[in-house]
Amino acid sequence: MPIERITILGTGLIGASVGLALRSRGFAGTITGWDPAADELAAAEASGAIHLIAGDPVQAARESQLILLSGPVFTILEWLDRLAPVLQSGQLVTDVGSVKSAICEAARTRYNLVHTAGFLAGHPMAGKEVSGAANADGNLFEGAAWLFTKTPESRSMHPASRALAAEWRAWPEKFGCRVLDLDPARHDVLCAWVSHLPQYLSTALSALLEDEFPAKDEVLAIGGRALREMTRLGASPFSMWRDVAHTNTEAVAASLLALEQRIAHLRENLKTPELRDEFEKANRFRASEYFRKR
Amino acid sequence: MPIERITILGTGLIGASVGLALRSRGFAGTITGWDPAADELAAAEASGAIHLIAGDPVQAARESQLILLSGPVFTILEWLDRLAPVLQSGQLVTDVGSVKSAICEAARTRYNLVHTAGFLAGHPMAGKEVSGAANADGNLFEGAAWLFTKTPESRSMHPASRALAAEWRAWPEKFGCRVLDLDPARHDVLCAWVSHLPQYLSTALSALLEDEFPAKDEVLAIGGRALREMTRLGASPFSMWRDVAHTNTEAVAASLLALEQRIAHLRENLKTPELRDEFEKANRFRASEYFRKR
Repeated sequence: MPIERITILGTGLIGASVGLALRSRGFAGTITGWDPAADELAAAEASGAIHLIAGDPVQAARESQLILLSGPVFTILEWLDRLAPVLQSGQLVTDVGSVKSAICEAARTRYNLVHTAGFLAGHPMAGKEVSGAANADGNLFEGAAWLFTKTPESRSMHPASRALAAEWRAWPEKFGCRVLDLDPARHDVLCAWVSHLPQYLSTALSALLEDEFPAKDEVLAIGGRALREMTRLGASPFSMWRDVAHTNTEAVAASLLALEQRIAHLRENLKTPELRDEFEKANRFRASEYFRKR
Repeated sequence: MPIERITILGTGLIGASVGLALRSRGFAGTITGWDPAADELAAAEASGAIHLIAGDPVQAARESQLILLSGPVFTILEWLDRLAPVLQSGQLVTDVGSVKSAICEAARTRYNLVHTAGFLAGHPMAGKEVSGAANADGNLFEGAAWLFTKTPESRSMHPASRALAAEWRAWPEKFGCRVLDLDPARHDVLCAWVSHLPQYLSTALSALLEDEFPAKDEVLAIGGRALREMTRLGASPFSMWRDVAHTNTEAVAASLLALEQRIAHLRENLKTPELRDEFEKANRFRASEYFRKR
C-alpha cells in the first residue's frame, strides 16, 4: 500500500524542497501543506511543492498517513506535542530537524507505542543560506546524506506505522541521498562538528567583518572567492539557528571552544615550524577522495 | 611601443595563469618562463602559458622589457634582490605577491630610480586551493580585483619604465579585473581581513577536524556543502602561506585574535538574545548587492 496522503507542516525551504523532490520522483499521492507564513504556503503551492493548502493543519494531519514536520527545532517540538493526542496508530510522523536528541526525547513517551502514531526522526544534510519556499529545489538533496536516528522505543512501533516508515526510508534514496542510521546523541555531536560549527563560525566571521568595516566598500571591492565562501552562511536565518543553539548547546559550545584554541595556537605559531604541521594536517583532511569529487 | 618580451619568473598557478590570460587576450609578443621546478616549467610550456623556457632566468630577464615575479613572498623578495643589479632603466619589474609592504620596502632603494629598472607592485585577488601550472586558467582573474600599490619612490621611475607600467596596467583590465590602487600598508591590513584570515581559519578548522576525526569516514559520510566550503582552503600549500605569515604577521595576528574573541562571545551567548544580534550583523554583511550577484 503506497503512501497516498502526506501532510507537510512547514513549507519553507526544506519542506517545499521535499514536496518538489517527491513529485519529481514520481510520488503519485496527494501532498497537503501548511505553514504559519501565508506567503510561504502560497509560494509552495504555486511551485507545485504541495497540491493543496490545508485549511486546518491538525485536521490535515489526522487525514494523512505520513506527516512531515519541517522548520526550526522548537517548531518541530511544538508539533510533536500538539499532534500526539490527535493522531492514531498506523500513522507515521517524520521530521527534518537539525538536532535529534531533543526531538527523540520529546517523542519518547508519546509516539511509537502500539496505540499511538509512529515517529521516525530524520535529518537531510542539505540546505541553503537563504530560506523560504521560493528558494526550494527538488534536487537539493542530490548527493547529500539523509540521516535517520532510531531509539529503543521505535522497536515497539505499530506494524502499520512500521510499514510506512520502511516505505518513507526509500524516498530519500530516490532523491539521490545516502541514507544512514545514527544514534541521536552521536548525530548531535557529529552535526555539531560538520554543520553547526561551520555555521556559527561563518556567522562570527561575517558579524566581525560587519563591525570592522561598517562601510564595506573597500572590503567588497577587493574580496574574492575566499571571502564569499567563508561568509556565505552568514546569511543564514537566526530563527533556525537559535533553536540549534538551544537544543545542542553542549556539543556546539565544545566545538567552538576547540576551534578558538586551535586558532590561538596557529596565531601563536605564525613564525614557528608548528605552522607547517597545521598546514600538513589541514592538507591531509582535504586529501580525501570525497573532496576531490566535488 | 607595445611590450614585446615578457619573462615570467615562477610559472606555478598564478604565473602560468597570467601567461594564459595574456595570450588569450591577444598579447602578440613573446613570453619566456622559468621556474625552480622543472615539471612546473614543462607544464607551463605544454599548456601554452609560455612560449619558451629560459635557459638562464637572469639572462632572460635582462632581455625582456617586463619581468613578472610570481610565487611565495620570499621568492619574490629574492628575485628583487638578485635582479636589481643586472637590470637597467627602461625595464619594468612587476609581481603578484600576497603581501606588499615587505616587497615595496625591498624595492625601495634599488628600483624606480632614474638609472635602475622600474618596479610596479601588483596583487591579483584570485587563486585556488590547488597550486601548480597544471591548474592554471586563463580566466582565473575574471571578475577579481587586481591591486597595485604605489610608493612615493615610484614617482621617480625612468620615463621608459613608466610607459611600460602604464601599458601593463591595461592588461589586468583585459583579463576582466577591477584595477585598484592602494597604499602598501593599507593593502596588507585589508588583505589580512579578506584573504589571509579566511585562509588561516580554514586551515585551523581543517587541522582540528583531522585531529578530532582521524578516521574521517563518519564525518565525510554526513558532511554537506558547509563542510566542503569552509575547509576548501585547508588544501592550500604551506610554502605560500608561511611567507604571508612571516611578512604580514602583525595584521594577520590581529585579525585572528579578533576572530577568537568573536567566536568566544558567540559561544558564551548561545542561549542569550545576544545571539540574535550576531546573526543580524552577519545577515547585514551578506545583504550587500556584491554577494547577491555571485
